[in-house]
Amino acid sequence: MKSFEFYNPTKIVFGEGKTSEIGAFTAPMAKKVMLIYGKQSIRKNGIYDKVVKSLEEAGISFVECSGVKSNPVLSFVKKGIQLFRNENLDGIVAVGGGSVIDTAKAIAAGVYYEGDVWDFFLNKARVEKAPPITVVLTLAATGSEMNSGGVITNEATFQKYNLHGELLFPKVSILDPVNTYSVPLNYSMYGAVDAIIHLLETYFNGRAEYTPIQDSLVEGLVKNIMEAAAGIIRKSDDYNSRAVMMWAASLALNGLTTSGAGAAGFPMHMIEHSLSAIYDIPHGAGLSIVAPAWMRYAAEKDYSKFAQFADKIFGIKNADEALAASQGIKALEDWFRSIYVPVRLQDVNIPLDDIPKIAENARGLARRWGMKGEYKREIIENILKIAAS
Amino acid sequence: MKSFEFYNPTKIVFGEGKTSEIGAFTAPMAKKVMLIYGKQSIRKNGIYDKVVKSLEEAGISFVECSGVKSNPVLSFVKKGIQLFRNENLDGIVAVGGGSVIDTAKAIAAGVYYEGDVWDFFLNKARVEKAPPITVVLTLAATGSEMNSGGVITNEATFQKYNLHGELLFPKVSILDPVNTYSVPLNYSMYGAVDAIIHLLETYFNGRAEYTPIQDSLVEGLVKNIMEAAAGIIRKSDDYNSRAVMMWAASLALNGLTTSGAGAAGFPMHMIEHSLSAIYDIPHGAGLSIVAPAWMRYAAEKDYSKFAQFADKIFGIKNADEALAASQGIKALEDWFRSIYVPVRLQDVNIPLDDIPKIAENARGLARRWGMKGEYKREIIENILKIAAS
Repeated sequence: MKSFEFYNPTKIVFGEGKTSEIGAFTAPMAKKVMLIYGKQSIRKNGIYDKVVKSLEEAGISFVECSGVKSNPVLSFVKKGIQLFRNENLDGIVAVGGGSVIDTAKAIAAGVYYEGDVWDFFLNKARVEKAPPITVVLTLAATGSEMNSGGVITNEATFQKYNLHGELLFPKVSILDPVNTYSVPLNYSMYGAVDAIIHLLETYFNGRAEYTPIQDSLVEGLVKNIMEAAAGIIRKSDDYNSRAVMMWAASLALNGLTTSGAGAAGFPMHMIEHSLSAIYDIPHGAGLSIVAPAWMRYAAEKDYSKFAQFADKIFGIKNADEALAASQGIKALEDWFRSIYVPVRLQDVNIPLDDIPKIAENARGLARRWGMKGEYKREIIENILKIAAS
Repeated sequence: MKSFEFYNPTKIVFGEGKTSEIGAFTAPMAKKVMLIYGKQSIRKNGIYDKVVKSLEEAGISFVECSGVKSNPVLSFVKKGIQLFRNENLDGIVAVGGGSVIDTAKAIAAGVYYEGDVWDFFLNKARVEKAPPITVVLTLAATGSEMNSGGVITNEATFQKYNLHGELLFPKVSILDPVNTYSVPLNYSMYGAVDAIIHLLETYFNGRAEYTPIQDSLVEGLVKNIMEAAAGIIRKSDDYNSRAVMMWAASLALNGLTTSGAGAAGFPMHMIEHSLSAIYDIPHGAGLSIVAPAWMRYAAEKDYSKFAQFADKIFGIKNADEALAASQGIKALEDWFRSIYVPVRLQDVNIPLDDIPKIAENARGLARRWGMKGEYKREIIENILKIAAS
């Protein structure tokens, strides 16, 4: 095991009906908040009304900031910062999934900072002060509700970069599984893919040699998510399946499974961010394309962890580790197909002639995330070619 | 899954050599602290010198409060409160295991409270203000380094009761596995037992019907702890085994495995607390006696979870759930024997004639913990008789 620091002060309030407590949990910290959300879906499914009623009952006034899109963009963040300042707000209530929460974090980082908010994404500044964020989660996927990071796309430069800071942990996140009943099947499954790949990044890329706690956490959660996905496909309003998906996705990127594993880079995310930055495809859809390709590339360097994955997740036992690894990756890809997510670049109509351009974009993140030595341009191109094969 | 709140703001600083950072982590919160520890062992193994040097380098002065004994007592807590007040201290640095940390928490609860500190243990008062606690952990066992509870024995009344409060979470806990190298084998194994039973209390007593996340967390951590115990028996200074034991014991009672499981009572702890309150035996030794007996009693009411335990922990597969349950409990008891911990009341020289007295004592906690309906005196006596059979 490697040395680590683990710190996660977000309070999770989990369960059916908890949405109506957002006001009470926010009131001790803020009195005039930005209510940030995405499209109009929360008005249709009743979440908006519950949140507004709860805020009003708690004596909290609010200004709306709606229209966050998936793969959220820097220009929206900047408008949010202006709105927050103009209205003299003192807190942010984020109602949505990762895109909304990440936008809330970027706005929170920027409102008390005099420079360009993109500085935080370029590691040119640290978040020293930020208003409190509280969350009503509506999509199980990114884990942003229980961590201190966020990802925003600079649409002028096609950079999909991340920021982080201890002050950006949501103070309270309300996880009501019922709020995800109306998430369309495809987005529910993209969320499952995202959470699984969060777990597998460190599982396959960690630098510690002995990680039995981290391995069993990851293997357990991956199986939990797969079982929950099957339950959701059978019945979109199955409470237990939605609940398992929601809590597992939070645990998948809250620092728990990476602590002690000697966290290395996130190469699958690195390559995927280029796909969603350039083509605006759903992040989970990009991951289900990149992951099997990356795994085939990486397994060749050391089969053993991939053989362990095949055994623990799919029960594939084979003394030939190379064969076991290959079968395990195939089993994951087959499982992706079974939940109707894409597994090839062609499935989302990305032109294969663009592979050099995508690789060039990914090199930006490789440099930023300290992987430029390992992930040279031709290696990224090769992985993308596997994803087109 | 059941509704829950999860909140754990303790910062964990884990790894070899981290002991010398206690000063730097404490300095932002306190300038004149109580340095609380147990016996003189930390002077022999060098931990004391490292802590003192680190505090001095950080400009923190300290007053010593040493001599905490295992099964820590109320009279010592009261002396500590007086010392804290007399010296005008502003923080507590706890260097030790659960006994020391629990004593630190009780002192912290008491110093700003005008009434009797035992009020917190009788639920007559809530902790409204407390000085910050930072920890250097020296024993992997109770999980107190990462939760908000503590257990103290009132030696006048033979009540071993608990207190809790959000302000009692240690602000920072330093987990340096090297600090546990010199823990004697028997106490290392009592710690393993304690952590395993923390996990199993909710596993067997939780009220939720569907708990796949919680089950795989528990099953994984129990196996991690068993493997680490074997490693420690082979080699007391095996870093990885000590590291796994230390982190797993923290995760075993930090709220993670109980969240969503609909936590019910802790009947094994309830009965054990009477043993260590009356006979002053190590808590882990009492648990290894009580646990198999309680499991035999409880399995008769519903074999299925015990059959799952037998399968997942020991690979015992048997279509006859009653038989599988029985074999699983026997396997746990055999494993306890293999790590040299007691499994019968007679092993620690508790007179069997005392069983009614022990049961009467346990009824006090049964009432306090809301289990008085289920754990009538004759049932507790029956469990104790199984523990003597």
